[in-house]
Amino acid sequence: MLSALDLARRIEAGELTPAQLIEQCAEAIAKREGEIGAFVNLDVDGARKAAAADGIGSKPLRGLPVALKDIFDTADMPTEYGSKVYPNYRPKADASLVAMIRRAGGIAFGKTVTTEFAHTDPGKTRNPHNLAHTPGGSSSGSAAAVAAGFVPVATGSQTGGSVIRPASFCGVAGFKPSYRLLPTIGMKCVSWHLDTAGLFAATVADVAYAAATIGDRDLRVDRGSPASPRIGVLREHPWPSASTDISAALDTAARAAGAAMARVKDIRLPPVLAAAFRAHATIHSYETARSLASEYERSKDLLGRGIRELIEAGWAVTADAYDDARRTTSQARRALADMMADIDVILSPSAPGAAPKGLTSTGNSTFNRLWTLMGTPCVNVPGLTDHSGLPLGVQVIGRFGTDRATLEAALFVESALARRD
Amino acid sequence: MLSALDLARRIEAGELTPAQLIEQCAEAIAKREGEIGAFVNLDVDGARKAAAADGIGSKPLRGLPVALKDIFDTADMPTEYGSKVYPNYRPKADASLVAMIRRAGGIAFGKTVTTEFAHTDPGKTRNPHNLAHTPGGSSSGSAAAVAAGFVPVATGSQTGGSVIRPASFCGVAGFKPSYRLLPTIGMKCVSWHLDTAGLFAATVADVAYAAATIGDRDLRVDRGSPASPRIGVLREHPWPSASTDISAALDTAARAAGAAMARVKDIRLPPVLAAAFRAHATIHSYETARSLASEYERSKDLLGRGIRELIEAGWAVTADAYDDARRTTSQARRALADMMADIDVILSPSAPGAAPKGLTSTGNSTFNRLWTLMGTPCVNVPGLTDHSGLPLGVQVIGRFGTDRATLEAALFVESALARRD
Repeated sequence: MLSALDLARRIEAGELTPAQLIEQCAEAIAKREGEIGAFVNLDVDGARKAAAADGIGSKPLRGLPVALKDIFDTADMPTEYGSKVYPNYRPKADASLVAMIRRAGGIAFGKTVTTEFAHTDPGKTRNPHNLAHTPGGSSSGSAAAVAAGFVPVATGSQTGGSVIRPASFCGVAGFKPSYRLLPTIGMKCVSWHLDTAGLFAATVADVAYAAATIGDRDLRVDRGSPASPRIGVLREHPWPSASTDISAALDTAARAAGAAMARVKDIRLPPVLAAAFRAHATIHSYETARSLASEYERSKDLLGRGIRELIEAGWAVTADAYDDARRTTSQARRALADMMADIDVILSPSAPGAAPKGLTSTGNSTFNRLWTLMGTPCVNVPGLTDHSGLPLGVQVIGRFGTDRATLEAALFVESALARRD
Repeated sequence: MLSALDLARRIEAGELTPAQLIEQCAEAIAKREGEIGAFVNLDVDGARKAAAADGIGSKPLRGLPVALKDIFDTADMPTEYGSKVYPNYRPKADASLVAMIRRAGGIAFGKTVTTEFAHTDPGKTRNPHNLAHTPGGSSSGSAAAVAAGFVPVATGSQTGGSVIRPASFCGVAGFKPSYRLLPTIGMKCVSWHLDTAGLFAATVADVAYAAATIGDRDLRVDRGSPASPRIGVLREHPWPSASTDISAALDTAARAAGAAMARVKDIRLPPVLAAAFRAHATIHSYETARSLASEYERSKDLLGRGIRELIEAGWAVTADAYDDARRTTSQARRALADMMADIDVILSPSAPGAAPKGLTSTGNSTFNRLWTLMGTPCVNVPGLTDHSGLPLGVQVIGRFGTDRATLEAALFVESALARRD
């Protein structure tokens, strides 16, 4: 994999130019893209032109190539949202996040495969660790592109579990920031209470560096070592339980963190958080029906089964049921804040297990939905594998708005796991 | 003016057809649109076709024509956002609110003038009550179209004061619902914490009927008489004060409500709400810079002065200042909820006074910004005028999420004012 921080340092030191890096990425892509299928659109010429621009290497992102999930609008590349409704669609403007990436000195390198409207109907992407397995979704291509060493940074979005799950399945760091830390304007909306823009990179420090430079925020964790966090380990969940493999991985991560002097204790979720987990489905379908009302009315036959069923479920939700779900959400946010009063982060599996075999499903978002609804920062920490060598991710979940502390705690866990080896 | 409820009842009773109504509106527009300039685009043929569709008169909105602020995407009409960056732009999909209007049986009749990106650079619209005066903004064309009797219902959006102020200046009912009660998807975003979709109609009951049918919510207030509300009258504000005219209007409304047996008392805002008023500017500019980053980078020269200055101010706001402003907002929301524990609504001027003379400015949003940031429902109650006959509006502000009670209280004030005459 390509470390964003390492590449940025080499560019800063004059050991590498943005133009050389583009060629290196193009070469890696030429070798393996045929079997992985991370991209729906590549713009190597555009990237070459951007890399040749004066002063690009002095900007915060140092001319690093960034792959963009094809749910983000781009003015200079087609944007299809994984949907037959939008063949070769050309938005007039870049999404805010894309504009911010370019402004920070990132180079838009191509658009990556998304499931249809970032829901469940899968694209063509395969898991770089085992081509017979899903890379996860909905940010399938972005996670795979980082895992395959195609690019150092990629964008994703999460409405259910679309950043943390594919990061876990592909063995990369994934960061779903606090709700709205990164803007979602120009990202195709499916659910306005849930849609969250996120990032992928090789390691926790890399993804923190990308978030810091793109968002112009104090989020870097690569300068000095992280403080020892207070960790609450969540072993029991009000949703179908984790596999033996991922339970063992969680245990390994908790023990490694404890051995590295983190204060670790087991925690349980209060009942209102189980109600909030169920509220996610209500809010998700209600809002998707309204967000995609025009596509449904005008082009129903072009929609895949997953997204069509979600929209139809959403039209059946009453305003009262939706308002109840939002009230439950507010209560759950307060209960979660109370519950986390004496811990810094929660440690939980990122997914029910490793990437399932097959490409007809991108896996299950049960371990992510609650945190998306709570708007809390989540980081997938890579570094563990199952018996067959497939990645297993654990997730570090912080309090709303404590993105930097959450990234530091994730770095702490990642380092503890690395020292264990 | 055209009463939406009255027209809907006549269509229901078979006394009027949607097709006849379209012709009636087209005629009214033909007579006065030349001097008022409410529309950037009219689609009478499209409206005729929609009015001829089977069963349109049986749907909740009964085939009523609706004018759409040109900040809402329409798949079948150009959408220009009042901007030179988007000449003849054709979005692929309707905005969610537009799709919901059509689904409810409303007929999209045309696109109305908005200031540039719904900010301050004005369009061509004149105030129907006096052509030398501004109609207010940014929803200039929508408020004027209802005031001129062109259409019974129109959509607007409010980021500062863009629904309540033009409603006040044009003497129509304006409804800015609780934040996100009506979806903003496909409405050009300038500030994601502030942008709120709203509606205009002739009277409070009319605008409630439109909101109820479009949003499929229990918001109608035309069945039975409203309960007597507890009203807090806000006479002093932490921003430049109101004109003598509007202060007198507020006094008249408070006395009329009291005479009609509302419980009325004077209230004062706690200091954190003054801080929140200032926070509005920080959040507004920070988010607008990021929302319109692509337009600014690619087409700066095509932007008007007002929006360009707002974007540039926003790039100068640090993430820390922005986060501080958001924290202040959260504190202010809690303080406001506490302050309103023993009242149902606040009564306040809708604007500093009547519509100012001239068309180079759309007036001032000081009386609206705080409530937009608080996300509380606001209704402009028409019915009062200044010495020259120009409309003066008072604003009824409810607690977040109590949209129905707020509309009922607004109806109560409106009825009390009418009985006074």
